[in-house]
Amino acid sequence: MNVENKDINFLQDDRMVSSELIFDGAILRLYHNQLKLDSGQIVSRELIHHQPAAAILAVTSENKILLVKQYRPAIVEDIYEVPAGILDYHDSATEVAEVGALRELEEETGYQAKRIEKIASFYVTPGYLNEEITLFHASELVKVDNPLPQDADEDVTVYEFTKAEIKTMMAKGEIKDLKTLYALQIWLNQ
Amino acid sequence: MNVENKDINFLQDDRMVSSELIFDGAILRLYHNQLKLDSGQIVSRELIHHQPAAAILAVTSENKILLVKQYRPAIVEDIYEVPAGILDYHDSATEVAEVGALRELEEETGYQAKRIEKIASFYVTPGYLNEEITLFHASELVKVDNPLPQDADEDVTVYEFTKAEIKTMMAKGEIKDLKTLYALQIWLNQ
Repeated sequence: MNVENKDINFLQDDRMVSSELIFDGAILRLYHNQLKLDSGQIVSRELIHHQPAAAILAVTSENKILLVKQYRPAIVEDIYEVPAGILDYHDSATEVAEVGALRELEEETGYQAKRIEKIASFYVTPGYLNEEITLFHASELVKVDNPLPQDADEDVTVYEFTKAEIKTMMAKGEIKDLKTLYALQIWLNQ
Repeated sequence: MNVENKDINFLQDDRMVSSELIFDGAILRLYHNQLKLDSGQIVSRELIHHQPAAAILAVTSENKILLVKQYRPAIVEDIYEVPAGILDYHDSATEVAEVGALRELEEETGYQAKRIEKIASFYVTPGYLNEEITLFHASELVKVDNPLPQDADEDVTVYEFTKAEIKTMMAKGEIKDLKTLYALQIWLNQ
């Protein structure tokens, strides 16, 4: 993975006593570190670095939400999610979240957004993973004729749902992705 | 980690062409697998197994929410979270989520709940991780005199907040954990 040690937050932790790089993969790096807690106790922690990501609550002019459905090997299921993607890392800097959000929206749904606002940034699994997602609200959407192409190994289908449809799907447990549940909860209460 | 291959969902995927176990840790297992997609394309995927967990939206009789604050090495921060914990795995079976939720609530906050209801189950990071969390709503809380002890390497502080306080904290970006943001969004809209 094209990222430097100085850009991985948990490798800069004053509490770190030792660090072992276990795996350097395409999307994640796994470390096995020893830390000295404030109590003086030495503990062992398995820590994963993953690039930050952006996710988009994208609402059409007909007040429908755009969700994408794709096969997720980790859970062996096709699930609905808000459009999202990893922020690129280049020139020793992580892509600005808003730029990445607009790119992912276009790649995954074929829509551009004239208006985009940050909702929140959050950690998805702070117990052992440093991935941070910034969630945006995108509106004033325009379907483009020649959108950015999807990644070659992605196969994403786009859906548009009304609030009533989403409520039914949530009640049936058909929305299973946490960032998507959070985004939908915000949208339903607007 | 004390779990068998047959109990890891993504090792049972018909699309799997090959699988390499990279790391077998205390809380996670990392695999590097090759998969044959429906399109016929062979893709490489880094996949993490982590035991399922339970999280609890616990509301006191004064309509305050219980949050815990603890140091999280992966993000090098002390953050607020709803009480939560990994479900134990023993006798070749994963602990029932409701039992684990009540145990974690008592260990982390010193409260027992007379009433507990499931809100939803979800995946925290379905792109590369199979961890599933079941979120419960706990109420009719009773402070116990001799609660279950915290895990030896945990140092958790308990807080109680009103809805007004939570709204202020969220507006300031002080709640940074995704499952907690989702739980709070539900609570604020009740």
